Amino acid sequence: MGGSLARDLAERGHDILGYDRAPDVLSAARASGVLRETCGPDLQGLEQAEIVALAVPVDGAVRLLSLAQPRLKYARLITDLGGTKRAICAHAEALGLGPRFVGAHPFAGDHRSGWDASRSGLFQGARVFLCPVAQTTPGALNDARALWESVGARIEVVDAAVHDQRLAWSSHLPQLAASALALVLAQETLPPAELGRGGRDVTRLAASDPDLWTGIALQNADYLSQGLAALESRLAELRRNIEQGNQADVRALFGRALRWSFSQPSSSSTDSDPAPDAHSAQG
Amino acid sequence: MGGSLARDLAERGHDILGYDRAPDVLSAARASGVLRETCGPDLQGLEQAEIVALAVPVDGAVRLLSLAQPRLKYARLITDLGGTKRAICAHAEALGLGPRFVGAHPFAGDHRSGWDASRSGLFQGARVFLCPVAQTTPGALNDARALWESVGARIEVVDAAVHDQRLAWSSHLPQLAASALALVLAQETLPPAELGRGGRDVTRLAASDPDLWTGIALQNADYLSQGLAALESRLAELRRNIEQGNQADVRALFGRALRWSFSQPSSSSTDSDPAPDAHSAQG
Repeated sequence: MGGSLARDLAERGHDILGYDRAPDVLSAARASGVLRETCGPDLQGLEQAEIVALAVPVDGAVRLLSLAQPRLKYARLITDLGGTKRAICAHAEALGLGPRFVGAHPFAGDHRSGWDASRSGLFQGARVFLCPVAQTTPGALNDARALWESVGARIEVVDAAVHDQRLAWSSHLPQLAASALALVLAQETLPPAELGRGGRDVTRLAASDPDLWTGIALQNADYLSQGLAALESRLAELRRNIEQGNQADVRALFGRALRWSFSQPSSSSTDSDPAPDAHSAQG
Repeated sequence: MGGSLARDLAERGHDILGYDRAPDVLSAARASGVLRETCGPDLQGLEQAEIVALAVPVDGAVRLLSLAQPRLKYARLITDLGGTKRAICAHAEALGLGPRFVGAHPFAGDHRSGWDASRSGLFQGARVFLCPVAQTTPGALNDARALWESVGARIEVVDAAVHDQRLAWSSHLPQLAASALALVLAQETLPPAELGRGGRDVTRLAASDPDLWTGIALQNADYLSQGLAALESRLAELRRNIEQGNQADVRALFGRALRWSFSQPSSSSTDSDPAPDAHSAQG
């Protein structure tokens, strides 16, 4: 994410000052011409940055913000790119950075991470959630908006708690479902090559970075726990109906899942959508 | 599946005699030139077929085989294309069709079904499981093998019960996981457009045909029930560790899921595979 943003901004003429704790990543990014300069190991040189964006796993971002804080005297915007927003927003406020802080979550990319997976144009047309805190100035929010719009993103400004609740279901739960299924298949020693195209789709996210997702899962434990419990209940409901041979109930559950697949954002209740003809279902 | 097989065989010069209970499907298939003739509503005309392949949901296949049985005096191979194999194989034996019966399961395609989703070349390089029964003659098995190899399939001959157990985990469980997640998201009125690329992958199979999957789930209830229970347990394990903030345990679970993603068929235990560097993970 950070690498992709740096590429886009460098292409637009911005001077990028970069840092990564992995020296090889930093030298690769510098060799690519994307970084004009790099910070020292204690973020020496960060003082000259006008805009500071933290692109590390969400638990690391909290620690990194504390480390950066003494060097942020002149930055007019401080932001991050993490998949959870409550913890980093609260920490920015606690550090007195609230007026200049806007949390950001670009909802783009896939299970790959790291510099090698970065590419320019990643955010073109992508949704980016912006989470200002109570003290964020209109100027800082405008800067954050301009930054992301310049790389093609569609901005959605949302409260950090609302973001975390919504993403628990729409992003974190699918990740956990894929990882849990992978663990089940690992236990059965059924490797990915045993799966069909559909099964490989379901489990693709299991290849996501464990560090990234450990941080997200723990920071969003309260909301995510609700999602996991709901998924356990649904699976148990399907299992009981299958064990009891309740054909009509099993059919109805699959039918509701199918209707969801074709439900639209404007719909107030996806369950009331008409079912499309399965014969013409298109992916 | 049936439509795709008919297309491939017609292209190779075979005369295809077709039947579908939906008149519009039958006329579309005939208009396409794939079908040379069609059977009547009680399968009149089926007597002339040398090879008979049932391509309907698995519960329907059992009923259809009974309906077809009086007209199968001259067929030298009777087969099906269903995702479960125990029920149809047992039924073929019970009907006295064992010597000429070979169950088949082409592990190809995606969540789409019906004539509109059919295409030639679908089975090129695809795995096809063949399940002979105890009385199947070598000639019938060779015919089944030749049929599927002619359309490019890679054949795997396997006992029906072994097939059903293996597919419960590798195919039916991923389907149920996707459907269960779709039901959870439907309940939260979060439509597919709210998901990112990864979440859409995880839930894509929820668009599968409910009739097809109700039959499969009920015929494979015993094995599938074990898979569902295992997935519930894994989700609960993840949830408890997340709720308790067990960072090392959560990290270890994500790490094992990642290792599974890169595990190979030859490996006797996927859990012992070395973890690739997440930075260079490729999908």
